[in-house]
Amino acid sequence: MSGRLSIIGLGPGDDRYLTQEARDALEAAEALYGYGPYLDRVPTREDQPRHASGNREEGKRSQAALTHAAQGAHVAIVSGGDPGVFAMAAAVCGEIERGPDAWRAVDLVVVPGITAMLAVAARVGAPLGHDFCAISLSDNLKPWPVIEKRLDAAAAGGFVIALYNPISVARPWQLGEAFARLSRHHSPSTPVVFGRAVGRADEAVTITTLKDAATAKADMATLILVGSPETRLITREGRAPLVYTPREAAEVTA
Amino acid sequence: MSGRLSIIGLGPGDDRYLTQEARDALEAAEALYGYGPYLDRVPTREDQPRHASGNREEGKRSQAALTHAAQGAHVAIVSGGDPGVFAMAAAVCGEIERGPDAWRAVDLVVVPGITAMLAVAARVGAPLGHDFCAISLSDNLKPWPVIEKRLDAAAAGGFVIALYNPISVARPWQLGEAFARLSRHHSPSTPVVFGRAVGRADEAVTITTLKDAATAKADMATLILVGSPETRLITREGRAPLVYTPREAAEVTA
Repeated sequence: MSGRLSIIGLGPGDDRYLTQEARDALEAAEALYGYGPYLDRVPTREDQPRHASGNREEGKRSQAALTHAAQGAHVAIVSGGDPGVFAMAAAVCGEIERGPDAWRAVDLVVVPGITAMLAVAARVGAPLGHDFCAISLSDNLKPWPVIEKRLDAAAAGGFVIALYNPISVARPWQLGEAFARLSRHHSPSTPVVFGRAVGRADEAVTITTLKDAATAKADMATLILVGSPETRLITREGRAPLVYTPREAAEVTA
Repeated sequence: MSGRLSIIGLGPGDDRYLTQEARDALEAAEALYGYGPYLDRVPTREDQPRHASGNREEGKRSQAALTHAAQGAHVAIVSGGDPGVFAMAAAVCGEIERGPDAWRAVDLVVVPGITAMLAVAARVGAPLGHDFCAISLSDNLKPWPVIEKRLDAAAAGGFVIALYNPISVARPWQLGEAFARLSRHHSPSTPVVFGRAVGRADEAVTITTLKDAATAKADMATLILVGSPETRLITREGRAPLVYTPREAAEVTA
């Protein structure tokens, strides 16, 4: 008899982004696994043991949760944002691919969540109004030339670009390189949005330009949106400008 | 005195994807605007008049809601999925850009929702596990050559691709052309997922390949995911396969 493993997206920030399905899945779980700060967002329950792990222990966490579920339990891994976007769903699938048959027998349920780019975009207007892409700047799992190639393709194609995992202590230069790369394609005045800790008390959203982006502050909790040639600002008296990419595209840009 | 316009993402399908923030925003609205089928998903309230409009009347709907809000009311436009992804947020921003100053004075609040690609991806595993992009196949607002250029850029860059608005009565050939275009870059065995009406009673999710995609059925309620060269299936006895794109990328593919 095999159990169930739910991978639950909590959304960014506080509970405002939690869906009904995520609430129900949290309620149904007999045990919770996850990165400590994500587990901390879920109220504790005496009959629901929790297993916290570090943010570099995604493989071990997946293995522990799969082993537990394969014994017949209903367990859950909690994930920030959406578990399918640079998060736990792919990590768990990788372990299932490499693991014992018993793990394939587990009922795997992915519960989607609001991913950071949607929350940041909502804060400033409609920057993702036309075709867009999401790129992780982390070169822990892919070589930097692959990232450069994708930045070039996305910019040349006229996509709005969401940059995940922009910077960390171990990856200090990649974000600057990415802005330099995108500057080969785009005007210095291209709107850029830094969204840090959206939905949390320390939320900070900054609207800047590609020219000035290099000096804006980013950390692991920051999601960055880089506009396309069509992205523009709508100024408003007494309010922050709206950042907006029209759905219309009039011409082939290159 | 100016009011507020909230643009609320309901997510796809039924209420399971509704966030707490969306619930609160619906509760606070004095009047609701929206495409009829989306309004139908919100329970009626005697003190909350609703104004339904057709799915081609986005401009008129935005103007009516902005005019109402500029009179001091708290009104809301409801949107399926996420309002920022090929939906009402960009339409409203466009009207604000072209409209009277009074519309810029409105407190515009965008409430993000689960967009279709996240819900479909969750159903099948982790197809969006690495860098991905979202492209609307509708050539109502942009010329087809722009779409072709973006399909080429996305495929050559190794992105997983989510196709929104794949087909309609007025746009019968674009999806087939898109598959033909992507076949120039990708192997015939590249996994393709058709997700129709996810979260509704008539939900249908089909896993196929790029070679066979042309004969799979799609309509306006379908979201299509096309894998990258790294996307693969994990077979499972007695269960649908998982569709999975590893976070790792070993090499520059072109």
